[in-house]
Amino acid sequence: MPASAFQIPVYFDYLATFAWALSGAVVALRKRQDIVGVFVLALLTSMGGSILRDGVFLQRTPPVLTDPVYLPLILTATLLVALLRRRIAHLPVVNRLVGTIDAFGTPAFAVVGMQLALGAAIPLPGVVLVGAVSGVGGGVLRDMIVREVPFILQPGQFSALIVLLACAVFLGLTLAAGLAAEVAAWTTIGVAFVARMLTIRFDWRTRPLLDAD
Amino acid sequence: MPASAFQIPVYFDYLATFAWALSGAVVALRKRQDIVGVFVLALLTSMGGSILRDGVFLQRTPPVLTDPVYLPLILTATLLVALLRRRIAHLPVVNRLVGTIDAFGTPAFAVVGMQLALGAAIPLPGVVLVGAVSGVGGGVLRDMIVREVPFILQPGQFSALIVLLACAVFLGLTLAAGLAAEVAAWTTIGVAFVARMLTIRFDWRTRPLLDAD
Amino acid sequence: MPASAFQIPVYFDYLATFAWALSGAVVALRKRQDIVGVFVLALLTSMGGSILRDGVFLQRTPPVLTDPVYLPLILTATLLVALLRRRIAHLPVVNRLVGTIDAFGTPAFAVVGMQLALGAAIPLPGVVLVGAVSGVGGGVLRDMIVREVPFILQPGQFSALIVLLACAVFLGLTLAAGLAAEVAAWTTIGVAFVARMLTIRFDWRTRPLLDAD
Repeated sequence: MPASAFQIPVYFDYLATFAWALSGAVVALRKRQDIVGVFVLALLTSMGGSILRDGVFLQRTPPVLTDPVYLPLILTATLLVALLRRRIAHLPVVNRLVGTIDAFGTPAFAVVGMQLALGAAIPLPGVVLVGAVSGVGGGVLRDMIVREVPFILQPGQFSALIVLLACAVFLGLTLAAGLAAEVAAWTTIGVAFVARMLTIRFDWRTRPLLDAD
Repeated sequence: MPASAFQIPVYFDYLATFAWALSGAVVALRKRQDIVGVFVLALLTSMGGSILRDGVFLQRTPPVLTDPVYLPLILTATLLVALLRRRIAHLPVVNRLVGTIDAFGTPAFAVVGMQLALGAAIPLPGVVLVGAVSGVGGGVLRDMIVREVPFILQPGQFSALIVLLACAVFLGLTLAAGLAAEVAAWTTIGVAFVARMLTIRFDWRTRPLLDAD
Repeated sequence: MPASAFQIPVYFDYLATFAWALSGAVVALRKRQDIVGVFVLALLTSMGGSILRDGVFLQRTPPVLTDPVYLPLILTATLLVALLRRRIAHLPVVNRLVGTIDAFGTPAFAVVGMQLALGAAIPLPGVVLVGAVSGVGGGVLRDMIVREVPFILQPGQFSALIVLLACAVFLGLTLAAGLAAEVAAWTTIGVAFVARMLTIRFDWRTRPLLDAD
């Protein structure tokens, strides 16, 4: 990666990981899972995107293995949810907090994924795919393992579309407009955050392409 | 890969990818998915075999990332299905066309997978596994993500068995009979195509090993 | 791996693989699958842990490809189950035999996974994750492909917790107490075996963190 590459500030990285771990743990609670299940869902939700990105697509060792901070962080989120389980499972403030961190974190991790793909000399369409996988992979793995149809397949509020918007904005600003990665990344995160907030505010939704017969 | 290796003619490669993308997109339509879901299913159906083959088994960067043609092709199939959705979802000719291309494409991609495995000095049983994963992996990922039991697990018309037949024919012709890869590959594709057509014509089916109690 | 590394005696490795393949095949039988489905489940159950460990986490070619013995072994288990299907599907002795081999094999493969991760200079939390994936990955893939909620997520008899205990014992004995890998590995396997037998004897179970509302 060039010196000018965007890097997620390390504390925000850990904060986002913690928030995603919490959100996965809460889903597991509601599914009546035991402590192991809560941990596994917290792990997949928070690290699944980078595991897919590195383990399957870019052939790198995933950061959940190389950075010793993530697993203790996810374990902490698991124990916190276990301790506060009665209060936390239905607390609207938890959902709102996780939603806000998610709105920042998803485009940030998409940008990091795209930078890794660009560094691996992957052509543009593949770069966007790696960015999208980085952004939504965790949620997809989480849904698959609890036997839900993954959220990105189902009609609902825009989420994957916002990740794609983020990918397009970042690539446009860096490759076409020539902005520094750092500036482009923060602009991208800002645009995606606003798009997400508008989506929630106005409840913009995708629809099934085919109506019921 | 040696100079004599079989290579899928590039236009047939793209044609088969397009056909598999169409077939995945039509499954997604029928599952009432939105445009993102249709694209994801088109992607997994057409590229899932090579993603599993390279990303999980052979530790290579999957072609969906390295060749910039595949993703725009899959996007085109997605948009085409979205535009023609009312007409395409139940059109028998689409099924028949996809079925025919699939009958050629599955053994062709199995041969490519086996060649890559042979080139990586993997012993024969592993070569057959990589060939089979290349041939049926896309359909398995597609079924798993929409919560179907993968088609290859269920009793039904021969499909995985034909891929295994193709693997055996190709390895027999090249390693035992010493034929050039190119000749052996086309013979393999021919044999598998005929086997598939006979399977459909006579509705040959596998059965559950154990009947209902 | 250093010369002093623990290695699973090759015959026990093959015996455990065969036992896991049998157990996967019997699950497939009960799910009314055909011969291909029985083979696929036998394969995922017996090799899924090492496929995830190497293919996704450690970026190595999985042993199912590099060692030509595994696939014929799994095929033999498949054919054996197919032949004896009426007798084997509900035979308590099969379950008990598989359970005993599993009680030895799971910690043994967790130790092997941890050694590989230590050899790849992965820090401790990641080492434990790789050990756990090696031990329980096969069962998770098996459950996901037949659309069950993976056993480790559900309340039930201790299984993942015993794998974690095994990881802690092995790392404590080698890294903290300085024992040779060989001695530490056999101690770990013994401890995990006893823990598993006690779990079964007294039916120790995890519980959902949250009771039904």
